[in-house]
Amino acid sequence: MTDKTPSVGTVEISAEQTAREEALVQKVLESFEQAQDMRVRYVMEALVRHLHAFLREIRVTEAEWYAAIDFLTAAGHITDDRRQEFVLLSDVLGASMQMIAINNEAYANATEATVLGPFFVEGAPEIPLGGDMSFGAVGEPCWVDGTVKDTNGNPIADALLEVWEADEDGFYDVQYEAERTAARAKLYSAADGTFRFWGLTPTPYPIPHDGPVGRLLEAVGRSPMRASHLHFLVKAPGKRTLVTHIFVRGDDLLDRDAVFGVKDSLVKDFIAQPAGTPTPDGRQIDGSWSRVRFDIILAPEGI
Amino acid sequence: MTDKTPSVGTVEISAEQTAREEALVQKVLESFEQAQDMRVRYVMEALVRHLHAFLREIRVTEAEWYAAIDFLTAAGHITDDRRQEFVLLSDVLGASMQMIAINNEAYANATEATVLGPFFVEGAPEIPLGGDMSFGAVGEPCWVDGTVKDTNGNPIADALLEVWEADEDGFYDVQYEAERTAARAKLYSAADGTFRFWGLTPTPYPIPHDGPVGRLLEAVGRSPMRASHLHFLVKAPGKRTLVTHIFVRGDDLLDRDAVFGVKDSLVKDFIAQPAGTPTPDGRQIDGSWSRVRFDIILAPEGI
Repeated sequence: MTDKTPSVGTVEISAEQTAREEALVQKVLESFEQAQDMRVRYVMEALVRHLHAFLREIRVTEAEWYAAIDFLTAAGHITDDRRQEFVLLSDVLGASMQMIAINNEAYANATEATVLGPFFVEGAPEIPLGGDMSFGAVGEPCWVDGTVKDTNGNPIADALLEVWEADEDGFYDVQYEAERTAARAKLYSAADGTFRFWGLTPTPYPIPHDGPVGRLLEAVGRSPMRASHLHFLVKAPGKRTLVTHIFVRGDDLLDRDAVFGVKDSLVKDFIAQPAGTPTPDGRQIDGSWSRVRFDIILAPEGI
Repeated sequence: MTDKTPSVGTVEISAEQTAREEALVQKVLESFEQAQDMRVRYVMEALVRHLHAFLREIRVTEAEWYAAIDFLTAAGHITDDRRQEFVLLSDVLGASMQMIAINNEAYANATEATVLGPFFVEGAPEIPLGGDMSFGAVGEPCWVDGTVKDTNGNPIADALLEVWEADEDGFYDVQYEAERTAARAKLYSAADGTFRFWGLTPTPYPIPHDGPVGRLLEAVGRSPMRASHLHFLVKAPGKRTLVTHIFVRGDDLLDRDAVFGVKDSLVKDFIAQPAGTPTPDGRQIDGSWSRVRFDIILAPEGI
């Protein structure tokens, strides 16, 4: 082993050394020739090509290789039923968002997708149009309305909207020890494709950063904060299911969201309403509230 | 999310889609701009470029992304003080061997390096020249001799040789429940650079394959077997430390060693000696034995 200073740029490699490294890659690629599943073989070959290219490009040191093994081990050991450090790792490397982008290809004017996140829960309570999804979660009330349409502009009736968000302390209901359901609900669009509900004005919060991924963010000078957002999951027959958020225009975390979930098209005007401003449905509110409009366009299924 | 059939070749991507994916990669790369350690920044940027290139090339599906998360989680949970599944993963992807290749650059006629493996133990007992490193481990005796020289052909006196291997049942001493030291020792080369000792004729064995890495090997139709080998770690002042094995010519696992450790230059003739053949040092052996010659050439330090 050598103890040369690790490089931060291109280094000269001899022809013999290059030949040895390339022969090794070739040997590993050939080891997949007996794979019966052609997709598995294709994925493993691509993994090996990119992994070796990475190691060769950075001229990985022995110490770095051990550090990587230790990092993965620590991530595995902190992961349990309530904590998924490998998802966090994928998130902060932008890999989760890239997977979402790949699986939700740009189509006409369809609304862009973003990450699902770890806090979606099946079986949220249904609320009527105009109902309140906060269920007692603390935060400033926010009136959300909009339409669900197809890419030709036709309204979609009875689209299922699942909505969920953190409270103003930055926690989802499932992050509290006490079992409760709050700041999450499902509702259906009206015959004309419109929907409306009361939620909470979104607030920022950090991803869990007391583990190896938190230490990685610290080592590269990055914040664990997510830009403020409200989650949507929208389903309708014959349409591609949309998993997305809306973000708050003016939030100074928009350009440094820890998981790269922000898309310009998903940044919306949450318009502040001073205390005393009449509400759309006559609800009495002591204090300020906000309102936001989100028009949703669903791509056809199978795109 | 789409449920398209995963591809095994190049697929057409629209310009808008390509732009979205590339913009995401760019955003992730920019997130490392505040890193204080230039090497950390360089490594993370390269990691992100190669990781995203891989995901985009294979058009990773949502199901595959979840399978990868589950694989890493299972690898983390099986890993403990005695089992290191991430090292095994690195091994079977050829990444460990590539790290070794990168850190032991080809130099003149210096002996090639290979993987250290998980079974090296500090503090092995010292044996004299011609001593027996088996310490009761079962197997056919093997006489090993050779020289330690520098790349100019000068003999190296007092080079430290650490040698270790599996017994004929395919297990290293540390794999047994009972605490014992066997089939491992250290010795020093003579004034003329020569060395000699009794070991065991190497036999093949599988890497641990009852975990996620074993299932991966099965999915791609690969064997978990390692080609038969005898480990060496050789140190001398002013010389690059050599970590290597010698392999047995004729072993049919040579071209499918599970961890890609085999180098042609490390395959040696283990010459079978029928029962009754006189031994080099007059030792009485009931049955067959073998002999092998291994001439070691150490590169200068700092190469």
